Amino acid sequence: MRTGIATVCLSGTLKEKMQACAVAGFDGIEIFEQDLVTSSLSPEEIRALAADLGLSLDLYQPFRDFDSVPEELLEANLRRADAKFRLMSRLGMDTILVCSNVATASIDDDGLRADQLSRLAALAGDHGVRVAYEALAWGRYVNDYEHAHRLVELVDHPNLGTCLDSFHILSRDWDTAPIERYNPEKIFFVQVADAPKLSMDVLSWSRHHRVFPGEGQFELAKFMGHVARAGYSGPVSLEVFNDVFRQSDVERTAVDAMRSLIWLEEQSAKWLDANPAPAGTPGAGRRRYPMELSTLPRVAEPAGFNFAEVRAADTAALETLLGRLGFAFNGRHRTKNVQLWTMGHARVIINEEAPAAAETAIAAVGFDVDSPVIAAARAQQLRAPAVPRKSQADEEVFQGFAAPDSTEVFLCQGSDDGTAAWVAEFGPAGQDTAGQDTAAGPSGARNAVIDHVNLAQPWQHFDEAVLFYTSALALEPQPYAEVASPTGLVRSQVMTTGDRGVRLVLNLAPLLQQEGAHGSGKPGTAAARPTYQEHVAFAVDDLVATARAARGRGLEFLPIPANYYEDLDARFALDPEFLATLRELDLLYDRDADGEFLHFYTATVGSVFFEMVERRGAYDGYGAPNAPVRHAVQYDHLHQLKLTA
Amino acid sequence: MRTGIATVCLSGTLKEKMQACAVAGFDGIEIFEQDLVTSSLSPEEIRALAADLGLSLDLYQPFRDFDSVPEELLEANLRRADAKFRLMSRLGMDTILVCSNVATASIDDDGLRADQLSRLAALAGDHGVRVAYEALAWGRYVNDYEHAHRLVELVDHPNLGTCLDSFHILSRDWDTAPIERYNPEKIFFVQVADAPKLSMDVLSWSRHHRVFPGEGQFELAKFMGHVARAGYSGPVSLEVFNDVFRQSDVERTAVDAMRSLIWLEEQSAKWLDANPAPAGTPGAGRRRYPMELSTLPRVAEPAGFNFAEVRAADTAALETLLGRLGFAFNGRHRTKNVQLWTMGHARVIINEEAPAAAETAIAAVGFDVDSPVIAAARAQQLRAPAVPRKSQADEEVFQGFAAPDSTEVFLCQGSDDGTAAWVAEFGPAGQDTAGQDTAAGPSGARNAVIDHVNLAQPWQHFDEAVLFYTSALALEPQPYAEVASPTGLVRSQVMTTGDRGVRLVLNLAPLLQQEGAHGSGKPGTAAARPTYQEHVAFAVDDLVATARAARGRGLEFLPIPANYYEDLDARFALDPEFLATLRELDLLYDRDADGEFLHFYTATVGSVFFEMVERRGAYDGYGAPNAPVRHAVQYDHLHQLKLTA
Repeated sequence: MRTGIATVCLSGTLKEKMQACAVAGFDGIEIFEQDLVTSSLSPEEIRALAADLGLSLDLYQPFRDFDSVPEELLEANLRRADAKFRLMSRLGMDTILVCSNVATASIDDDGLRADQLSRLAALAGDHGVRVAYEALAWGRYVNDYEHAHRLVELVDHPNLGTCLDSFHILSRDWDTAPIERYNPEKIFFVQVADAPKLSMDVLSWSRHHRVFPGEGQFELAKFMGHVARAGYSGPVSLEVFNDVFRQSDVERTAVDAMRSLIWLEEQSAKWLDANPAPAGTPGAGRRRYPMELSTLPRVAEPAGFNFAEVRAADTAALETLLGRLGFAFNGRHRTKNVQLWTMGHARVIINEEAPAAAETAIAAVGFDVDSPVIAAARAQQLRAPAVPRKSQADEEVFQGFAAPDSTEVFLCQGSDDGTAAWVAEFGPAGQDTAGQDTAAGPSGARNAVIDHVNLAQPWQHFDEAVLFYTSALALEPQPYAEVASPTGLVRSQVMTTGDRGVRLVLNLAPLLQQEGAHGSGKPGTAAARPTYQEHVAFAVDDLVATARAARGRGLEFLPIPANYYEDLDARFALDPEFLATLRELDLLYDRDADGEFLHFYTATVGSVFFEMVERRGAYDGYGAPNAPVRHAVQYDHLHQLKLTA
Repeated sequence: MRTGIATVCLSGTLKEKMQACAVAGFDGIEIFEQDLVTSSLSPEEIRALAADLGLSLDLYQPFRDFDSVPEELLEANLRRADAKFRLMSRLGMDTILVCSNVATASIDDDGLRADQLSRLAALAGDHGVRVAYEALAWGRYVNDYEHAHRLVELVDHPNLGTCLDSFHILSRDWDTAPIERYNPEKIFFVQVADAPKLSMDVLSWSRHHRVFPGEGQFELAKFMGHVARAGYSGPVSLEVFNDVFRQSDVERTAVDAMRSLIWLEEQSAKWLDANPAPAGTPGAGRRRYPMELSTLPRVAEPAGFNFAEVRAADTAALETLLGRLGFAFNGRHRTKNVQLWTMGHARVIINEEAPAAAETAIAAVGFDVDSPVIAAARAQQLRAPAVPRKSQADEEVFQGFAAPDSTEVFLCQGSDDGTAAWVAEFGPAGQDTAGQDTAAGPSGARNAVIDHVNLAQPWQHFDEAVLFYTSALALEPQPYAEVASPTGLVRSQVMTTGDRGVRLVLNLAPLLQQEGAHGSGKPGTAAARPTYQEHVAFAVDDLVATARAARGRGLEFLPIPANYYEDLDARFALDPEFLATLRELDLLYDRDADGEFLHFYTATVGSVFFEMVERRGAYDGYGAPNAPVRHAVQYDHLHQLKLTA
């Protein structure tokens, strides 16, 4: 599949954009007119730069407001087109995007439109240019891709074809099956964009909220399947207007974009496999389409968490917290400065190799996969940046990658019984962590596992993170939730496997919390930046027993306000004895049609805290109604710490 | 008018919110349930705190999903209500907001609803509680305020009344005139919120985009006028769900909120003046409503700019730039470390009193007003923070306030001929600025004035800034524009006077540009923060002459790419000679139905640059199509500076 991207997707100057596209591995680009107009490079210099970088210049865009106008305006538009065709010849480009008229269309007559497009095609022919005509979703008269294509067929000129843009088609919920019957020679260009399903005017949606494939909710694999079966073999090019991507690091965004096309290629191939063309349709005879050339190694979803790793300069507080929570110290690694703590099958590694000033933080998460080597090859093809870890000859080699938030993601060998072979590299226990009674076994926690891991995401890498985990780890994004906190709404995006063996929660903290609260005045006046707290949650069979044992060991719980329990009682009319237990142990509670959820939180060390949960019945959530309580109490404590500091 | 605010509008803990409301001068508050549930304060402590702070606790809210349900669920809802009524008695509160059912409503029957509300009212009566029933704009069956009020009238119970919320009414475009005929004793509460007109689903609009009155586009004065004429005299309380306010500094947001009510009170009084109640309607006989007690001094819009002030530690580059632009040095102030530079009636002050490390920046803007003392009194009542300036006995006293972006705004004595009396405090010219040929007069610039000032706004204070200039300076917000730049979209909000004597442009820079580009990784990893550039634009009669003279003096123009002129020619088919002049002098050009616009930009000093414009005909814009060129060239230069640094 030939890959492409429009320069409007990226930040920077035209030169910076082109360099980033080349580095990310794109075959070609679309030149967005404004990027050329504002560039100090001449058309000839741009052409030479593209040649040097090995990028083809696939599409000049956009040419607006051409058709459905009175004759006088049409003549001005043809003059304008002529200037652009001459410019294209200097650029060495042969295809231009002409979108249906929005601003100046005043005559709704397909005959007239066909005549006007035919004159444009003739002029284009004189310059050796092909016109790709596209129906904008908000075009004045032409806003349906089938309408645009009917006009192309009516004109029937070799220099006029269709441009199919997934956003303009899927935002309007048009059926994409008719594309299969199009003459592939009349499809001049294909643009792809994904988008979250938003209920807003389509123009604002398009201009601000498009995302790369896999970061939204459009059925792009199906769209691409129909395009493939029409016999289209030209560029598949990203055209994504997104407020965040336009300001983010250009090289990083280009890689994110490339990842989305590699993933889309595979998804399209899968869709084609699963949806054979009905006998008698044009696609029925064909075997291999460009979209089916994906060499991405396919992997099953991960079976579970292998471990969570916390990095700390001073590990004492962390050791105390884990010990009191019921974790057992399993010794140090034989060659690395790391400790292993376990509770049932939940494994937490304390990494002591942190810079002295570093705050205690979640550094890595390990996932159980069938074959770490194949999973790593897939991640590598998806441009995930590798993080090498040193290991001795006889030690398990960890395949690791940096997630967009810079958390290290490790692909580990899973096992049927939830154990991990590398545990043997640790030991013996009972030494070196003074004061920890490692003999004390966990309570009610024989079957403990990591239930979920909650990671804070920088706002400018949130969509990138969703695609990263979707493509590299085969996790699936769930509908997101918004949770109130004293410093703003927190957006919570759960990514899971089908069997919920892995639940990863991506939290998007409020902006000011990310950049430093109480910043004010002119842009440029920085303020101290509090770190958003992250956590690891463990599931046990009997939370009350676990909590009581932890309290016995002196664990510092996150204290829950009395008002919460009164509200809980008003909402659920709980058994008084049960309510008293919840209150006694600072437990939180939730209930829905599927089951019940009990949980508690520990105090925070650095930016890390822990949660202990018990799922009853088929409860599939995370106690979202309780999250504001957690945020408020944590904020209050942080605030009090500041006041006393 | 009794002022109130819901705690959900603000950031922080309940205690912090209450303290900020008291400091800002609110009479009372609405307690948002979640703020109470997550608080460590007991109801009794909250009650005592409110008493200490002099705040009345006006409304407990919200009580959701009560009506239109089967009997079993209704009984559970009554139990839930009973618990809340008991809680309210501990808080010493007597009014609760019950909103129309969204989630659990399953029976659409007004008779049943009336019966259910009547049972709730009876229970409330037993507890001495009043139920204020509100139609949510997205209520399942009840989503129209008139429907909710019909139910209230049907039940006819002393403990059941209506809550009117401007958002739920105006977001649906309901007519507000019927409110005038309501029995005021049945209006238990009035909530106000403004909002920008967005085309999106009303729930998302409501939950994220409400703003304080004067920051959006709703006709709130009219709404309040109808409420006043109904005879309502209870609290007028803000209920504003806004993603930004929820995370901003609580005290500052509370002041912004209070300002909006002071302004709304005045606007409502004005509306009542301008729209007398028709004879025979209930409002016709009344004279004074609570909304008419506004004591805010009324002022006319400013006549023009009095001066712009740039602060610099090293003033040499600035002096060179102004001199070459055609400004004349008018000497130093006799007692302050400031210089005066003029061109026609455009006055620029260079303030030398900047800390050594400070970047050259726009520090202050002066506006011509009829009476500085009255205008200052108004600003003060609107809670604008005063900035005192020292002055000697015989010098003009400047009344100054800090705008939300911390620019100092001065209210100056205007004059009919565009002169300023304080100019006499400067002089003599021709000394102390070595190398400036102050004798060289301006070219084509005898009538030069400040055309507009463009100020960068921190994103978290953007709405606050709109209200500040609307209320304190009587500027009017125009529809906003979005302009592409290499680091993201820039939102440009023009604020003007009716005669365009004052044009102030508030620019909202892309977030990453505000917080430091190329920041990546975990929240907390800061990066260098480039300052967004601001500028002052001057209007002259003959831009070409001014530009040519400036070029003769060696002014460093912002260089415009050749590609721009080719595009310009394609769009406008310009006279070749005129186009050559534009190209020769790095001039930009725009044209619309009203007229033409010529302009050029200077190089940047610190974070400041200057623009010179010529308006032909009735052109009323700012050359928005050219803004991306300006941004791109400035970015490129900044980037090259970095590379060579």
